[in-house]
Amino acid sequence: MNFASDNWAGAHPAISEALAQHSTGHASAYGTSELDRQVEQKFSELFEREVAVFFVSTGTAANALSMALTMKPGGVCFAHEAAHMIADEGGAPEYLSGGGRLRGVAGGLGRMDPAALEAAIGDYPAQFIHAGQPASVSITQASEIGTVYDLEQIEMIGGIAKKHGLPLHMDGARFANALVSLDTTPAEMTWKRGVDILSFGGTKNGCWCAEAIVVMDPDKAREMPFIRKRSAQLFSKSRFVAAQFAGHFNDDLWLKTARHANAMGKRLADSLASAGTARLAWTPQANEIFLIIAKQKAETALQAGARFYPWPVPRGVSCGEDEGLYRFVTSFATSKEDVDAVVNLLA
Amino acid sequence: MNFASDNWAGAHPAISEALAQHSTGHASAYGTSELDRQVEQKFSELFEREVAVFFVSTGTAANALSMALTMKPGGVCFAHEAAHMIADEGGAPEYLSGGGRLRGVAGGLGRMDPAALEAAIGDYPAQFIHAGQPASVSITQASEIGTVYDLEQIEMIGGIAKKHGLPLHMDGARFANALVSLDTTPAEMTWKRGVDILSFGGTKNGCWCAEAIVVMDPDKAREMPFIRKRSAQLFSKSRFVAAQFAGHFNDDLWLKTARHANAMGKRLADSLASAGTARLAWTPQANEIFLIIAKQKAETALQAGARFYPWPVPRGVSCGEDEGLYRFVTSFATSKEDVDAVVNLLA
Amino acid sequence: MNFASDNWAGAHPAISEALAQHSTGHASAYGTSELDRQVEQKFSELFEREVAVFFVSTGTAANALSMALTMKPGGVCFAHEAAHMIADEGGAPEYLSGGGRLRGVAGGLGRMDPAALEAAIGDYPAQFIHAGQPASVSITQASEIGTVYDLEQIEMIGGIAKKHGLPLHMDGARFANALVSLDTTPAEMTWKRGVDILSFGGTKNGCWCAEAIVVMDPDKAREMPFIRKRSAQLFSKSRFVAAQFAGHFNDDLWLKTARHANAMGKRLADSLASAGTARLAWTPQANEIFLIIAKQKAETALQAGARFYPWPVPRGVSCGEDEGLYRFVTSFATSKEDVDAVVNLLA
Amino acid sequence: MNFASDNWAGAHPAISEALAQHSTGHASAYGTSELDRQVEQKFSELFEREVAVFFVSTGTAANALSMALTMKPGGVCFAHEAAHMIADEGGAPEYLSGGGRLRGVAGGLGRMDPAALEAAIGDYPAQFIHAGQPASVSITQASEIGTVYDLEQIEMIGGIAKKHGLPLHMDGARFANALVSLDTTPAEMTWKRGVDILSFGGTKNGCWCAEAIVVMDPDKAREMPFIRKRSAQLFSKSRFVAAQFAGHFNDDLWLKTARHANAMGKRLADSLASAGTARLAWTPQANEIFLIIAKQKAETALQAGARFYPWPVPRGVSCGEDEGLYRFVTSFATSKEDVDAVVNLLA
Repeated sequence: MNFASDNWAGAHPAISEALAQHSTGHASAYGTSELDRQVEQKFSELFEREVAVFFVSTGTAANALSMALTMKPGGVCFAHEAAHMIADEGGAPEYLSGGGRLRGVAGGLGRMDPAALEAAIGDYPAQFIHAGQPASVSITQASEIGTVYDLEQIEMIGGIAKKHGLPLHMDGARFANALVSLDTTPAEMTWKRGVDILSFGGTKNGCWCAEAIVVMDPDKAREMPFIRKRSAQLFSKSRFVAAQFAGHFNDDLWLKTARHANAMGKRLADSLASAGTARLAWTPQANEIFLIIAKQKAETALQAGARFYPWPVPRGVSCGEDEGLYRFVTSFATSKEDVDAVVNLLA
Repeated sequence: MNFASDNWAGAHPAISEALAQHSTGHASAYGTSELDRQVEQKFSELFEREVAVFFVSTGTAANALSMALTMKPGGVCFAHEAAHMIADEGGAPEYLSGGGRLRGVAGGLGRMDPAALEAAIGDYPAQFIHAGQPASVSITQASEIGTVYDLEQIEMIGGIAKKHGLPLHMDGARFANALVSLDTTPAEMTWKRGVDILSFGGTKNGCWCAEAIVVMDPDKAREMPFIRKRSAQLFSKSRFVAAQFAGHFNDDLWLKTARHANAMGKRLADSLASAGTARLAWTPQANEIFLIIAKQKAETALQAGARFYPWPVPRGVSCGEDEGLYRFVTSFATSKEDVDAVVNLLA
Repeated sequence: MNFASDNWAGAHPAISEALAQHSTGHASAYGTSELDRQVEQKFSELFEREVAVFFVSTGTAANALSMALTMKPGGVCFAHEAAHMIADEGGAPEYLSGGGRLRGVAGGLGRMDPAALEAAIGDYPAQFIHAGQPASVSITQASEIGTVYDLEQIEMIGGIAKKHGLPLHMDGARFANALVSLDTTPAEMTWKRGVDILSFGGTKNGCWCAEAIVVMDPDKAREMPFIRKRSAQLFSKSRFVAAQFAGHFNDDLWLKTARHANAMGKRLADSLASAGTARLAWTPQANEIFLIIAKQKAETALQAGARFYPWPVPRGVSCGEDEGLYRFVTSFATSKEDVDAVVNLLA
Repeated sequence: MNFASDNWAGAHPAISEALAQHSTGHASAYGTSELDRQVEQKFSELFEREVAVFFVSTGTAANALSMALTMKPGGVCFAHEAAHMIADEGGAPEYLSGGGRLRGVAGGLGRMDPAALEAAIGDYPAQFIHAGQPASVSITQASEIGTVYDLEQIEMIGGIAKKHGLPLHMDGARFANALVSLDTTPAEMTWKRGVDILSFGGTKNGCWCAEAIVVMDPDKAREMPFIRKRSAQLFSKSRFVAAQFAGHFNDDLWLKTARHANAMGKRLADSLASAGTARLAWTPQANEIFLIIAKQKAETALQAGARFYPWPVPRGVSCGEDEGLYRFVTSFATSKEDVDAVVNLLA
């Protein structure tokens, strides 16, 4: 009954197997092995164009190095005010971009409001040195609160970014969960809608440690090998990441694990809602479920061994005095039995 | 017959097994799991004192974050002029330390000359703002050219560092190879001789990706959790590193793999030298062997599938016109058969 | 009729004279001359305690180096959302602090709301590495919109900062204007109310280029000489700043110029308000006056040669459709005739 | 008898006068005034092409921001091992370039040896991410030891830089002294020989504080306004620098002061050498004279009030046991009487 986070899960058996399979023999280091090449090629196939792929150690690294690639002197990236980069990365984007700024932009349901984005960019007029220089826009897909941008919404943000000459970054720590939620393709959800750089996450979706920066136009990635090395993010035995991604993509495992996680989330939400045990704070679209539950019931479940986190109540969500907001995260490792058990506990 | 580098090897079967073993179930993220704690405790046992341990993604990260921890404004770290930090880390130590400087110090056989170190520190008088501030001293054990500092040599460097109030860092990417070469203990080779911070490498010694910063006095490591997070080096599923170290230390595997690698190096050196096929450029003390070989012979071996690298000839080493200097690196994965095969090829 | 900004004025004649007077003879460089010492001593007298003083080239430098001094890894400074550091310094505080973050805090009339400050600090719990580390609090005195914190308000902010163990910085680009507005002393307006570091501005108050960082407790300034040198802010002929401050403080010139500027502001505000020509957007307390004027009138005045800037209308200020908000800044160089002339133009 | 440094002198009377002259009236701030424009235009005339000019506060700032403009991720600038940037700027070039590296290159008489430069660049092969990326080459004209590169030597260094695609920077803290020494023009000594960026110093040549970055191709300077602002180097009352340069260039004052300084140096060198009192360590070409003097005589002169500095004896200079090496710096403010007085003291 562990719904604490999808990074509390270990590795999917197929990932472990892939690692074991590629552990023997010698292969050239620092991302130059045949397996690295194959996996990079696989990314290009998935995205239906030649992309540049860079493995890094963490999702924070993928985000921060994307910032480093696009940052200008005095540069500013515009992101949702609750974005992981702003709230949960310990200042890494600022640090690894050499002192850039993250400007929070408001927006309901975890998605940047286009008008608010326009207004925020307007605070930094081009060539006005005192304010700083707009450098990039970043969206999180799926968002921090389990919602997703639909394709039109991505396109709208992408249009604003392009109008101002800014690259659009997507934090895809939960890329697969959003992808299967929209039932679309990687190409449709990214460059066809204006996304230029993607932090592609495998870790939360069944890998041990598999994160990649995907630059849609390889010509714009020419500095990235140096940025990655300088940031101490170039693995010597890089094939250990490649092997995980090989297992991840094999036979569409990554889509299956994401579908499973989302389905378990839906099961949880539906069961609790239909039982009247809890109210959904908003409609979940991926694998994070936010529920308003009577505090006493939640406490009882936690004491009985269930793991989930209380969450700050955002503006616009109304909670009774004896109620609390709680986050439940599902993953490849969540079983129906886990879901049903916690549903029972909360009944 | 692959002697290209010890990071061309994959993972030791016991490491793969440890990873698989710990891949199930949920565990708290970001280095807070029970397994993380156990492995940290194991480090303290190995070093015979309570130490602070921080897993990071690469050896470069371990070095660069050690620099970040000790760097002052305008600070300078003194290291051998051929140190990995200076020659092979793409500027990461400077970058991640916020613009620090690495000052190269001369010294024969890959080891800093104590007098040269004193002179170099003397270029940066305390409180003289124009030159900068001495911040730390760093030694590499085993060195870049397969030699090791003996305990007295470490103590001498440690004494100089302490005299100037500077922490002493050890780049231990091949810590185990040096340790078994000296037949000593981790405590003797580090804090008992003046080492304050250690980059402890598992990757080159049979792991996939297992590097740790070990701070001998935990009180001096209080900023490191923030430095690591800000540098995007905090793994969410940190237990995947912990699991590797668990397998690494289990039943002294790490010492066995290091002894094996060193022994294979010795076998190679002895065989070739006794056959008169090659001359040792200097006496190897760990798992890197530098040999002077007739260029034609080396070329023949390379074409026959052997993998090893030509190396720039340093001052003080004399090579005939038709000879070249070549580096051979052995690892846990090097077999006697590999060694004998390349010896035959070079005969 | 120039009300564009107090940095459009040149230098007060007494400042020019002081520069000329000290231009002859030799004196030791880099801030070590007798004149530098005397001026530093004068600062200590003014602040009624021994303070550490560091001349720098710009107000932005004073602020940014104050950030550099107090910044922690992943550190955050809390400042009013419209603070100069956030809105007008091109990212210098972030850059020169090595990647720190400025967190905007709301508050009416240009002053941080204490409750909002508490809430903002609460977003960064101590020792929670994911969010970052609180590093400092900064207030601007006088504020960006011509208001001032009274002593109790400073004390309240100071109390919050101290409660969280954070140093309190004051951006005093218009320190003197606030000081004479409150009719208080430098000590009362700073360290006696909890201010630890001050950016002390002379440039806007009649100097050419005279800015200083004042650290109230010299023990906490020990790294500043290195920070300043590393940031390229240590003047060789430092006495050219010392000479300006010598002229500035001589015979209380700095208080006289500030009183004059404030008085000219008041004259402007009173004349326009009493004539019914304009409405005050809020009550001015220093030398920046914000007026709501009929757009057509403003346009006429601008075309007749008056210089002042239109200003974005903040929340809470109501402007008619044919009205605009305009900023008028007065200085030592503003004459009664200037004021009366613009008043007539706007009539 | 003050020969300590040319930055111990104050300001030339004509500079003080220019400052006073431009101190009245209002002018737009941040480098946009009419006077700023005129002085920028004057630079273009002096260099016989349209150049981009950026005033900054110190020579260290001019150098460090030049590094910031040209630095790549993991970038390296190649400069003489005794260059001011390496020896005397407290780490500012590394810091303000975001963590770049300065690689010292050997060479006799304060000038980089072309072969040594080629070899040093060779340590950083293009696209080899482990070593880093070559970013720029920097020469100091006049050098730190009072010598100058002749035009052919500049051209040779420029040719090497271009061959490797690297911009060539010139640290011209004593640009005028070198210029009049070579009896050439600014254009000949810079862009016609391959110089791309120049740190142009006025401070050591009679100004209070007048330093400029001159970018020969304005198209390559487009990021500099943002870099300067972000580095806190944009003066609000920028015209106080412009006024100094106006006075500096008026009626060729800058060449006259430089010729005077050099002539005083020559007088000192000739007088002492012909009297047999001292030996020249090498032939001076600008305003820094290095003399080998009996220690006792030097001590006597110092006690009698003369000011000059003892200097470390470099390789290749032979000093008797009772002799020392001493540096004498002359400036616009050095009189014949000063020279003759110290010559007498040393007799």
